[in-house]
Amino acid sequence: MKIVLDTQGGDKSPEEIMRGGVKFAKNSESEIIFVGQKKQIETELKRHSDIKYSVLHAPEIINMTDAPAEAVRNKKNSSLVAGINAVKEGLADAFVSPANTGAIMAASLFRLGRIQKIDRPGIIIALPTLKGKKVFVIDVGANADCTAYNLLQFAIMGQVYANIQGIVGPTIGLLSIGQESNKGNRLILEAHAILREIPNFVGNIESNKILEGEVDLIVCDGFSGNLILKAYPSGAAFALKLFKREIQKTLRTKLGGWLIKSALKNLRPLIHPAQYGGALLLGVNGVIIIAHGHSDSEAIKNALFVAKNSVENQLIPKLKKRLDNYQSCCY
Amino acid sequence: MKIVLDTQGGDKSPEEIMRGGVKFAKNSESEIIFVGQKKQIETELKRHSDIKYSVLHAPEIINMTDAPAEAVRNKKNSSLVAGINAVKEGLADAFVSPANTGAIMAASLFRLGRIQKIDRPGIIIALPTLKGKKVFVIDVGANADCTAYNLLQFAIMGQVYANIQGIVGPTIGLLSIGQESNKGNRLILEAHAILREIPNFVGNIESNKILEGEVDLIVCDGFSGNLILKAYPSGAAFALKLFKREIQKTLRTKLGGWLIKSALKNLRPLIHPAQYGGALLLGVNGVIIIAHGHSDSEAIKNALFVAKNSVENQLIPKLKKRLDNYQSCCY
Repeated sequence: MKIVLDTQGGDKSPEEIMRGGVKFAKNSESEIIFVGQKKQIETELKRHSDIKYSVLHAPEIINMTDAPAEAVRNKKNSSLVAGINAVKEGLADAFVSPANTGAIMAASLFRLGRIQKIDRPGIIIALPTLKGKKVFVIDVGANADCTAYNLLQFAIMGQVYANIQGIVGPTIGLLSIGQESNKGNRLILEAHAILREIPNFVGNIESNKILEGEVDLIVCDGFSGNLILKAYPSGAAFALKLFKREIQKTLRTKLGGWLIKSALKNLRPLIHPAQYGGALLLGVNGVIIIAHGHSDSEAIKNALFVAKNSVENQLIPKLKKRLDNYQSCCY
Repeated sequence: MKIVLDTQGGDKSPEEIMRGGVKFAKNSESEIIFVGQKKQIETELKRHSDIKYSVLHAPEIINMTDAPAEAVRNKKNSSLVAGINAVKEGLADAFVSPANTGAIMAASLFRLGRIQKIDRPGIIIALPTLKGKKVFVIDVGANADCTAYNLLQFAIMGQVYANIQGIVGPTIGLLSIGQESNKGNRLILEAHAILREIPNFVGNIESNKILEGEVDLIVCDGFSGNLILKAYPSGAAFALKLFKREIQKTLRTKLGGWLIKSALKNLRPLIHPAQYGGALLLGVNGVIIIAHGHSDSEAIKNALFVAKNSVENQLIPKLKKRLDNYQSCCY
């Protein structure tokens, strides 16, 4: 298996990204193709002669502030476009990048195209729950405006993905502002009616129930999904910050705070979940992982494992097969 | 000043609600009109002969599961309808209820009507921030579907309310999924363009920036507002639950946990913010406070103070005056 790793585009590019690639390569049988500025890559990797890798030279860089579609058209020799081309041409099995989400979307759509019956790809991410297992959420930002059929397609694809992540018969909840089927905006009311054809659809779920882990997959438009994706860690960080202030108030609690320091450290992945794995762009004709822009080497390593796992478990063939069973998941 | 308190409809009705009324009456000069089942109210209040109060007998109860508009039409002798009628007829200055939000909305619209130039009322609530001061959010659930003009009207009303709550020149942020003016769904893009006419509009704000307290007022549709309103405390509760699990893992952290117990207790209002104040239904022709369904006596007391404060500070006349200055805030 070969995975292309985009060394450009994140806050910590390129060194930290390459270190993530090295960490992954040391722990897996897969080969990494580093894409970016050849000289830069070779200088960094000289120190790690024991890993299997190759380099794809593509010196242009797409920045966070670039207009996605335009950047993809104009910067043909960027690491992002060259990397996705490698997947298109069958030189690699998957692509991982910490770059501009919009640009990754645009390049994937232009070069790989969509899977048949899918109108819009969606971004799926895993959140931690109180039960220990993960909950998957799709879409967390690819489509600010969605139709009910987009949501149906997200549900079908999300179930396939949750399944290859080890969840048998994943249950689906539709994100809304009340549990009852008549609660929600027009999009949700319409989606609720057509999601009934999906097995294990359990109805609406409110944003304060998701982290309890009762439902395996949450379906929503990209605007709503992005709002909650950012709100949970923000609420968590807020609580812990106020808690740290509270324990400074007395000698007794200060001492207590010193004793529990290690426990607080263990909560970091919870506060920054997006940095601890990759988001998958589901619906394009290839395995594309969007790593968080703030990703460090550990996050990149995790994102690469998400890619490896998806390829090994035949994500794309399984998506196509499942969609074949749906006669009417589009307009 | 007289405030009508609905003794019915919440999880802890009627005793806990009445106790909240008594707590408030003991700490303020205002008179409470308890509305509900007369005998029940008098039995409870016999124990508190030192407070100023009267009783309005309205034995019917609107439940959480009742269809709002229908319940309001059919249960004319419910505490909710009778209480709002008292405001309509000038017998009281404000109404506070822990009942069904939809039914409070419906009764307020039917009986009090809207303030001129307001198409839809919105629910405004205050959240805590890291800076200590509050941030106001409107709408948190009255309107699942909104137009850009609804959002403009929320912004104008929200600014008046934040102002009487002590914020001079409140800044406004538009809830979106990116800070840039071109990020968001169709509603947000359109609203962004027309909100520019409001003083102190600072642009889009993401859901992970709100609790930092940089902006005083957040404007959003009721679907999005409700999602984040429930997601923040859920993220906070999640962090604290996992933290409590973590500290059980070693003897050292267990001891630390015992020492910091008091600090954890002080975080309760943060985890359940909706229970510690009232939400105001802004845009109807009267001061209407929607208390949380789980409200205990402390929450009801706080909601009554929100009502008192709004009446004393001339909320309704100020709203009307401000709206007069806007020629084109509606279609």
